[in-house]
Amino acid sequence: MRLRDLELSSTTNTVLIVGSVALDSVETPAGTVARALGGAATYSSVAASFFCPVRLVGVVGEDFPKEHIEFLASRGIDIRGLQTVAGGRTFHWKGSYEGDMNQANTIATELNVFQDFRPILPEDYKSSPYVFLANIDPDLQLQVLDQMTSLRLAACDTMNFWINGKRDKLIEVLKRVDVAFMNDAEVRQLTGESNLARAALKVHDLGPRYVIVKKGEHGAVMYCNNSTCFMAASYPLTDIIDPTGAGDSFAGGFMGYIAKTGDFSEANLRRAVIYGSTLASFNVQDFSLNRLKRLTMKDINERYEEFRRIVYFEPLR
Amino acid sequence: MRLRDLELSSTTNTVLIVGSVALDSVETPAGTVARALGGAATYSSVAASFFCPVRLVGVVGEDFPKEHIEFLASRGIDIRGLQTVAGGRTFHWKGSYEGDMNQANTIATELNVFQDFRPILPEDYKSSPYVFLANIDPDLQLQVLDQMTSLRLAACDTMNFWINGKRDKLIEVLKRVDVAFMNDAEVRQLTGESNLARAALKVHDLGPRYVIVKKGEHGAVMYCNNSTCFMAASYPLTDIIDPTGAGDSFAGGFMGYIAKTGDFSEANLRRAVIYGSTLASFNVQDFSLNRLKRLTMKDINERYEEFRRIVYFEPLR
Repeated sequence: MRLRDLELSSTTNTVLIVGSVALDSVETPAGTVARALGGAATYSSVAASFFCPVRLVGVVGEDFPKEHIEFLASRGIDIRGLQTVAGGRTFHWKGSYEGDMNQANTIATELNVFQDFRPILPEDYKSSPYVFLANIDPDLQLQVLDQMTSLRLAACDTMNFWINGKRDKLIEVLKRVDVAFMNDAEVRQLTGESNLARAALKVHDLGPRYVIVKKGEHGAVMYCNNSTCFMAASYPLTDIIDPTGAGDSFAGGFMGYIAKTGDFSEANLRRAVIYGSTLASFNVQDFSLNRLKRLTMKDINERYEEFRRIVYFEPLR
Repeated sequence: MRLRDLELSSTTNTVLIVGSVALDSVETPAGTVARALGGAATYSSVAASFFCPVRLVGVVGEDFPKEHIEFLASRGIDIRGLQTVAGGRTFHWKGSYEGDMNQANTIATELNVFQDFRPILPEDYKSSPYVFLANIDPDLQLQVLDQMTSLRLAACDTMNFWINGKRDKLIEVLKRVDVAFMNDAEVRQLTGESNLARAALKVHDLGPRYVIVKKGEHGAVMYCNNSTCFMAASYPLTDIIDPTGAGDSFAGGFMGYIAKTGDFSEANLRRAVIYGSTLASFNVQDFSLNRLKRLTMKDINERYEEFRRIVYFEPLR
């Protein structure tokens, strides 16, 4: 049994991922999909699964297609933590992107079973050494952290809704994580600081050793402290189909690579940022998780090297 | 005589720069300046002057302070092409920046003597091997190109005003230059293409071998053809004082380094992009040209190496 193998082998490099599993209806200049597989925990779990064993905690309704469950299992993802609510309907997000696709327009958010989601961790999940708290209520993120017994590295994401509505709890979360993933607008919103570098360093001062600012088509920046910083380009794509899940596959790729290597040096964190960027760049090349479904490690490693090529310049002569 | 030396020695590596010389009144979150030295040709000439001899063509009024003339001369810039209109007033731009300072709000544009500017090239300027046509009327850019006898590399900048109002002439300019500097909004506006990579490649198809897209705080991208591209980060500054002239000092640093080296290989163009980014990053650290006034080659080379450090990651292991 594949799952059983994972349970036995995964104590040192497993990532626990907690967050939304959703059905997304999305319209972009490239087309539309209706009720396609989505959700932050889905994107990040699948991205991480290229590197390490993944345990997923989330909730779906009875309407959640069996093929999606089978796909997650086929990626070796441990889905015992994915609750199915009898008679419930799965979280459904409906949104659109226009023009440069840098901004999602939400048309409808039907929380459904996600409204009452409580992260219930199977007993053996609690000793997972790595956790990624995708964008959920900071109170729930704290509940997960409280249950973890053997954490080596914790990371979180968040969104404007919680920065506005649950600021104090979010700051508690930030105190307790090692890595914070946020986009540039969120970093500015949280700190009230318009200069991005200053804003990121203020988030760093709240607790996380590493603040990773996701800038969409402009790449990502990792802030460590006042003197170190790593800037990652975004991959220059001419065929962006659907940006949904880019940030989540970025975080999943990052966490997966860190868990696989167990190396928290800044040099390795930089590699992890590039793996995150790589997963995100593939993800936006198709709707839903369609590109990740057919992705191989060979594709990933080739694009990692491409990232080197596009930023390379020679030292002074 | 310094100027005389330049005239004699500069035939192989001189950049001719044509564009606005202005007085700027600027308000940013960091403070204000009134009628300070500005203008695209000023910023780009001073930036280029760190690398190579520069010849400047522009126009000012009688009100243009003598200290600015002396400053330009002190940088070794050949200002015989800088016309002074008797009784005229210098081009005056008044603008402000808010928040992240990514967008300039124009409060007033008093063209004054710049309204009737015609680029009159001193005879020996015409054999300059390098020319940078800063943002001016495409008709004037064409007039300059028509006068050049020994061009090795020509570059241009432009703005939304000309993309709207003189599109055909601008496209003629693009046909005749080797390098086009444009910001991301201009590239999208010119091509009607929202995907930045596709938009830049469409500009490339119009003529320029190199399209360099300036993205402000998000760095710059150089597009060469469908398969090659170079992404340069912006330097992560916590003390951005005034973004005025960033794009112009970028272009000036780029052109200066290319002229100094005479090497048009892609590897060298990448270095030139980093030198451009370096000059731009210093320029925004003070109002007007104040930071460039006290800048040294040591500062420049140290930041060039910093740029390497902030984007460096290891190859696959």
